Amino acid sequence: MTVSTLLNRHTALGALLLNARLDGFALLPGANLYYLTGVHFHLFERPVIALFTSHFPPILILPELEMEKARQINAGFQLFPYSENPSTWSGVVQQALAACHLDRVCQVGVDPYQFRLLEMRILEDANPNLSFTTAPQITARLRIRKDKKEMDAIRKAVTIAQEALLATLPLINSGVTEKQVASELTIQLLRCGSDPHLPFTPIVASGPNSANPHATPTDRILSVGDLVVIDWGAFYQGYCSDLTRTFAIQVLHSRQAEVGEIVLAANQAGRSACAPGISTEQVDQSARNVIDQAGFGKFFIHRTGHGIGLEPHEEPYIRGGNDMILESGMTFTIEPGVYLAGEFGVRIEDNVHITSDGAESLSDLARQIKILGEP
Amino acid sequence: MTVSTLLNRHTALGALLLNARLDGFALLPGANLYYLTGVHFHLFERPVIALFTSHFPPILILPELEMEKARQINAGFQLFPYSENPSTWSGVVQQALAACHLDRVCQVGVDPYQFRLLEMRILEDANPNLSFTTAPQITARLRIRKDKKEMDAIRKAVTIAQEALLATLPLINSGVTEKQVASELTIQLLRCGSDPHLPFTPIVASGPNSANPHATPTDRILSVGDLVVIDWGAFYQGYCSDLTRTFAIQVLHSRQAEVGEIVLAANQAGRSACAPGISTEQVDQSARNVIDQAGFGKFFIHRTGHGIGLEPHEEPYIRGGNDMILESGMTFTIEPGVYLAGEFGVRIEDNVHITSDGAESLSDLARQIKILGEP
Repeated sequence: MTVSTLLNRHTALGALLLNARLDGFALLPGANLYYLTGVHFHLFERPVIALFTSHFPPILILPELEMEKARQINAGFQLFPYSENPSTWSGVVQQALAACHLDRVCQVGVDPYQFRLLEMRILEDANPNLSFTTAPQITARLRIRKDKKEMDAIRKAVTIAQEALLATLPLINSGVTEKQVASELTIQLLRCGSDPHLPFTPIVASGPNSANPHATPTDRILSVGDLVVIDWGAFYQGYCSDLTRTFAIQVLHSRQAEVGEIVLAANQAGRSACAPGISTEQVDQSARNVIDQAGFGKFFIHRTGHGIGLEPHEEPYIRGGNDMILESGMTFTIEPGVYLAGEFGVRIEDNVHITSDGAESLSDLARQIKILGEP
Repeated sequence: MTVSTLLNRHTALGALLLNARLDGFALLPGANLYYLTGVHFHLFERPVIALFTSHFPPILILPELEMEKARQINAGFQLFPYSENPSTWSGVVQQALAACHLDRVCQVGVDPYQFRLLEMRILEDANPNLSFTTAPQITARLRIRKDKKEMDAIRKAVTIAQEALLATLPLINSGVTEKQVASELTIQLLRCGSDPHLPFTPIVASGPNSANPHATPTDRILSVGDLVVIDWGAFYQGYCSDLTRTFAIQVLHSRQAEVGEIVLAANQAGRSACAPGISTEQVDQSARNVIDQAGFGKFFIHRTGHGIGLEPHEEPYIRGGNDMILESGMTFTIEPGVYLAGEFGVRIEDNVHITSDGAESLSDLARQIKILGEP
């Protein structure tokens, strides 16, 4: 990340803070901090806190052992390192707050999805006059439209994911376990060039397990007639992909095929509805209508999609009740599914990017339920 | 995890709450929730909140799409599912609080290292009379002494990690990058039987990067005369290992060898000091004395170790100022290091388990700096 990219992002954040009448914004290690520093910090038991304001250079409070890493940032941060002895921390935090004029009565925004009580209490102890406002929209807005460099990384993450799945397919047959498939897919993701840290452990859910949208791979052995839902993604230069395809082991029963066709049509309807100026709830409704009209509405138990970027789940959320309007640069999943408890589930997930006049599916692997394995 | 194991853990938590005069404890997805449910939930934007009290069955508030997973728990949880529309959540949370009598003026404990503002605000909205007490000692105490089944898993995670490193060593030579080594090590961890999700991305830090204790693998190419610090671990049945060894590429310079011997002696001193009845600060001091006396004290910039278990960093923390007394069943790292900025770093990390009358090193890979690669 270039220094000018970082400084532009700091300026954009400062403007959002002014607009929201916030005196500052406090951030912990995670996607937002990476976006604003270009460096990965760990969210561990030793606090790392970044403080942004509209008028003063950004602040980083961090353990001494992270100083080497912090020196790489090179975009005007003031560093406030603390030692291993927690009794010394409060003084360091007070100095840091003074350096950016947050040592008075003031309002600090935080991302509630990420901000912990640990750091809130540490900041409150150093300045009891701080109030915290949960302001998830600030960082969401900052990151929601991807620039060209970000899109290049997401495209590559999609390519890596697709290649890794194709390399894994020959293994998938009756007799192997969900965990074995998940391990092989992970290996192929790394071989195909994913960053070592994956956005999430691949979901490999077979037979009745496929009716659980967030299943964890088990030792269940795949058998003839199973459906297998595979939900997987890669990271490339910090940006992720997130795809799902559904497979059948050796045979595809007619009821499975029927549900597969309905979910495929819903996926197509959802992707076709995407364009600048359309709301996310309209996109959700387009996919949902197809499943509703086929009589399976109550088995589509989740929203149609979610944004992807530095995080595998981020804004925009494609769901009923969300009137957010799509804009060029937004990038998200379209992933309708039908889940029949005790029987099977089907999900088909693509990654879609809003362009200046429409939308593009970044993923293009065949979407129909494919029959794998030989007797 | 058997139902009786889970119920025993719930009873132990209830007793800790009574003792701490807390009316309840609120937990989010993560190691604590896994310990108390045997099921992995994701920490995402949709809240999953478990509520424990001393007298009432535990509560789980969760999105509808996680219900299939929650039904696997089978240990007396009352389930409160909510739909995708956030406007309906508050009512569900109110019902859940009423079901465990937390719908009055009361004090709820949380783990500050894990609890987010998102869930705090949701609970506060449903009952403005809730106060939150940060009580990390509750869940730490619950999990700090590992039982036999947990130790079996940690031992296996150590074995997997050691085998994976040995399988990776032939690749490590001048000309390969840190990222390539990290990817190969990750692949070998999976091939050797690690759970698909690793406890952390392997650190492979070469040359001057090795002076950064928490380096992220880069595209830096290893070259002759580099030291390479490798810090890696496996997960097995949810339990982790966490090891570090330091290598030299083709040649080992005398200054590197000197520092290597000092760190090795500190590692041995730290491990030898471990026994029931000894405080963690005594262990830290034993390792630190060796490095201090050799004149490198100010370059040992972190504590001597941390607990391992369901998390790669947990209690007990082996550091100055921590008078916690070691007890049988506690399991942690001993990982002294010396970091010479701009030059190189050395770290040697083992996993140690406190027995009834002493301590055992679970890891036994050769600890000296090994020279790798051929010209």
